[in-house]
Amino acid sequence: MFSRQLIRNTGIQGRRLLSSSKPVFNKIASSPAAAKQPKKAGFLRWTWRATLAAAFAGVGYLTYEVYRETNPSKQTPQTELKPNGNKKKTVVILGSGWGAISTLKDLDTTQYNVIIVSPRNYFLFTPLLPSVPTGTVDVKSISDPVRSIAAQTPGEVKYFEAAAKDIDPVKKEIVIEHKSQRLHLGDAFTTESSDPIQTTINYDYLVYAVGATVNTFGIQGIPEYASFLKEANDATAVRAKLFNAIEASRLLPEGSAERKRLLNVVVCGGGPTGVELAAEIKDFIDQDLSKVIPGIENEMTVSLVEAMPNVLNMFDAKLIQYTKDTFKHMNIDLRTNTMVKKVDLKNVYASAKAADGTTSDIVIPYGTLVWAGGNTQREITKVLSSKVVEQQTARRGLLVDDFMKLFGDDSIYALGDCTFTKNVPTAQVAHQQGHFLATHLNKLAKIDDLEYQRENSDSEKADKLSRRIIKMKENLKPFVYQHQGSMAYIGDERAIADLTFGNWSSISWGGEFTFLFWKIAYVKMMMGTRNRILVSMDWLKSSLFGRDSSKE
Amino acid sequence: MFSRQLIRNTGIQGRRLLSSSKPVFNKIASSPAAAKQPKKAGFLRWTWRATLAAAFAGVGYLTYEVYRETNPSKQTPQTELKPNGNKKKTVVILGSGWGAISTLKDLDTTQYNVIIVSPRNYFLFTPLLPSVPTGTVDVKSISDPVRSIAAQTPGEVKYFEAAAKDIDPVKKEIVIEHKSQRLHLGDAFTTESSDPIQTTINYDYLVYAVGATVNTFGIQGIPEYASFLKEANDATAVRAKLFNAIEASRLLPEGSAERKRLLNVVVCGGGPTGVELAAEIKDFIDQDLSKVIPGIENEMTVSLVEAMPNVLNMFDAKLIQYTKDTFKHMNIDLRTNTMVKKVDLKNVYASAKAADGTTSDIVIPYGTLVWAGGNTQREITKVLSSKVVEQQTARRGLLVDDFMKLFGDDSIYALGDCTFTKNVPTAQVAHQQGHFLATHLNKLAKIDDLEYQRENSDSEKADKLSRRIIKMKENLKPFVYQHQGSMAYIGDERAIADLTFGNWSSISWGGEFTFLFWKIAYVKMMMGTRNRILVSMDWLKSSLFGRDSSKE
Repeated sequence: MFSRQLIRNTGIQGRRLLSSSKPVFNKIASSPAAAKQPKKAGFLRWTWRATLAAAFAGVGYLTYEVYRETNPSKQTPQTELKPNGNKKKTVVILGSGWGAISTLKDLDTTQYNVIIVSPRNYFLFTPLLPSVPTGTVDVKSISDPVRSIAAQTPGEVKYFEAAAKDIDPVKKEIVIEHKSQRLHLGDAFTTESSDPIQTTINYDYLVYAVGATVNTFGIQGIPEYASFLKEANDATAVRAKLFNAIEASRLLPEGSAERKRLLNVVVCGGGPTGVELAAEIKDFIDQDLSKVIPGIENEMTVSLVEAMPNVLNMFDAKLIQYTKDTFKHMNIDLRTNTMVKKVDLKNVYASAKAADGTTSDIVIPYGTLVWAGGNTQREITKVLSSKVVEQQTARRGLLVDDFMKLFGDDSIYALGDCTFTKNVPTAQVAHQQGHFLATHLNKLAKIDDLEYQRENSDSEKADKLSRRIIKMKENLKPFVYQHQGSMAYIGDERAIADLTFGNWSSISWGGEFTFLFWKIAYVKMMMGTRNRILVSMDWLKSSLFGRDSSKE
Repeated sequence: MFSRQLIRNTGIQGRRLLSSSKPVFNKIASSPAAAKQPKKAGFLRWTWRATLAAAFAGVGYLTYEVYRETNPSKQTPQTELKPNGNKKKTVVILGSGWGAISTLKDLDTTQYNVIIVSPRNYFLFTPLLPSVPTGTVDVKSISDPVRSIAAQTPGEVKYFEAAAKDIDPVKKEIVIEHKSQRLHLGDAFTTESSDPIQTTINYDYLVYAVGATVNTFGIQGIPEYASFLKEANDATAVRAKLFNAIEASRLLPEGSAERKRLLNVVVCGGGPTGVELAAEIKDFIDQDLSKVIPGIENEMTVSLVEAMPNVLNMFDAKLIQYTKDTFKHMNIDLRTNTMVKKVDLKNVYASAKAADGTTSDIVIPYGTLVWAGGNTQREITKVLSSKVVEQQTARRGLLVDDFMKLFGDDSIYALGDCTFTKNVPTAQVAHQQGHFLATHLNKLAKIDDLEYQRENSDSEKADKLSRRIIKMKENLKPFVYQHQGSMAYIGDERAIADLTFGNWSSISWGGEFTFLFWKIAYVKMMMGTRNRILVSMDWLKSSLFGRDSSKE
């Protein structure tokens, strides 16, 4: 209904345009019969022209967006004072994930001197990371350089590729360290290119958004033998391990236990990351690998191990059942109620709880093992909480008020996975928190300017300013999380989605159409036009050529 | 002239098509004036339609090619005997480079049981490798999985991801070993996924195409501190080192010696690889990095160090001069007559020869160092030559006859960089050798079938077959290399090309038009449609978005 209306409108516009400027199109026919114009033909013609026009408009818009992103305009340089004479405060952002980058994007960088510090010099669109190991999406397509993002804000932003080593909340000082990443690939890279470099920076406000690290729950063997799926290099490592195991198995006799072991893929953790990774790997085996190694689809097993009775706990029960059915149909070995106890080079040791409540010890041999188990706090977060009295009992994350201000410190704001709040630690939460915090800091800058103005005013004007300041402070609204829903890809071109509309309604979807919706929603969620185009091109590539089977 | 003819023809065809099957288009106009048709308008219209038709035809052709590549048809399985009862001989191909893959592509895999063995499970289009570290081209776009290539031949081909550890020319036996590649990326990957696996395979013919390895000429420090540019992971390492050095420099005070050092890029070796890499890095700094780190283009230095008086020796003197001029214009620090003596973590120590013949010791501090110096034989080649008496003096490569047969062994053929012949070891030579060898082996299979037939024939028929066999053997022509020319990208959107047409003519080109030619020629040289499209898409991406500055 709506789309037809759209076409008609565009059609009419198109007709007007043509009749005024391009009479050529009216002179094509050579017989008077042309005067009679069948309705259907006219409709087709206008639909075609509307499609062309829309395509041109779309390409034009994308070109403009891309140009704007890649050719940033000149930025206001960092200065000690603002034009009004007030001190320009320094905001240091620690991190380059969802919380940090969405703060950076909305922060008025002409009102603050902004410094962003993170050991990872790009933002990573983590929801698509499970698509990387199989090559459905390239890791570059979901990476957006911090420097490019910083170049798009109105004011100059300094970036340091470094990690915070120490924070002094009293002196408002951070020691940061750049460490050339150790990277060994074959024999190509054997030494670091330079020694670690340290320096100290000061802040007026600290936006603490360092995220969390993988929680191995003290299970023996996980750090040594499992791969994770948290950062870009994790995805590369999973891919390398998977391909190594497959290629190694080719040298062993068919049916041998060792060959079977190598062809077992075990994913631990039934959250969206684990589910999506298992689904992606199974898809890759069935859709692409089977074309170049016929029969491998019957030799390989993908297992998903979860300690709880269900995977994807945050979803509606119907959708959990739908996922189970899909996994069964796809032949993914789903092992719920199975708790991993220990891991060694070749086996996962677990305890499985049967329906009758009895438990038994099982051994799952693996060739590739991925741990997608959960998060825990980073070292630097522990350092910070040890230095603020109010944080010393905070084991599960920093404690913050409704404005994301750290309890016990007036200059530090914390958001995302390094905090412990009533919200589940997801990208969605951190993203909204970042947007909130930037807006909040922008308001604080205005209040700060008014206070500076008041100091330099006569008493009458000062009174007026005081009232305005009080009103502005009263208008500072706390953060409220708006849950928009959850989505997950579950394999075989199917996805599930639990969507929330305000507080009043929610819908649950599952199936192939939902997969299309999943794709569109993810592309929309991305922060840059460049990444949107790259991911779309990747999907086009993998549907055209299949996924790549070369081990880089 | 030609293209206009083409358009006219297509136009006429288009008209015929339309008037017979789609009368709709003849009924558009509403006034009798439409009967008069201005020539220009008609030409525009037909041009437009021809363009559309050509675009559709192009897309259709590409789609077909891609479909064919990604959906290989069923292969004849490997068997002990051929349908005619003769033994099906086993050909083992060692390697997955230019020589090995072009042999595989043209070999009649229904006449032989073919096994291909290489530790690298993809073919790498090496001429574009210098474009990878800067992100102009993605490494995946120039990689083609061996398994995909093998799946496109008519007969079943077995592939093992393994390296040859030992060869027994008497027993015609090879010991191969799969070793899960060590791959450390941050802390993501700390153990190997499995122990090395060995197995033994037999051959009737061995196609030995293992290539060569990097020659460091015994210069102290090169293996520890320099990166190479020979394999895909070298390109990744160069990128990581370059980005690490740039990011590290940001933490150091402006103007400090250490900051300056980190921003020096030194490329050793004035062959095409070194020249192209230096040019690509300088392009990246000037065109892309300067946008996100303003001023960096004046801080960074790219040096190209070459021991000989000239870079690009194989090119025409005019083109060498043109390269020198372009480098000067681009501000690339070209240091010819400079011989590297020693390298440590931070400096290159060299001896420079002045125009008057005197030499002096110099020190070049570096942040990123790449060694593109030359080739030497692999360990396994030394093992092989030690086992064949006729090869024991062959220090510079295996010695082969005009049919690429190893002197001293009737079952081993060698080609490419592991041999020492009158031809320069280039991709072009190996590619032609592979094509020749495949054709030669196909002929040998036919002769072998005839000989088998003769054994089982009466004397009259046997005589006839003997004469045919003799004739066929006489018709076996030796390999003759046809040099088609050399090309190199030299930066600032300029390339040089020395092209040869048969034995009678050659032309030398340099400039921006040559860069376009370079691009077209490289895309044409690629072996698969998939790679052609991917590389074209990469070029489109980098021209749209600039090169990526995230360090993966």
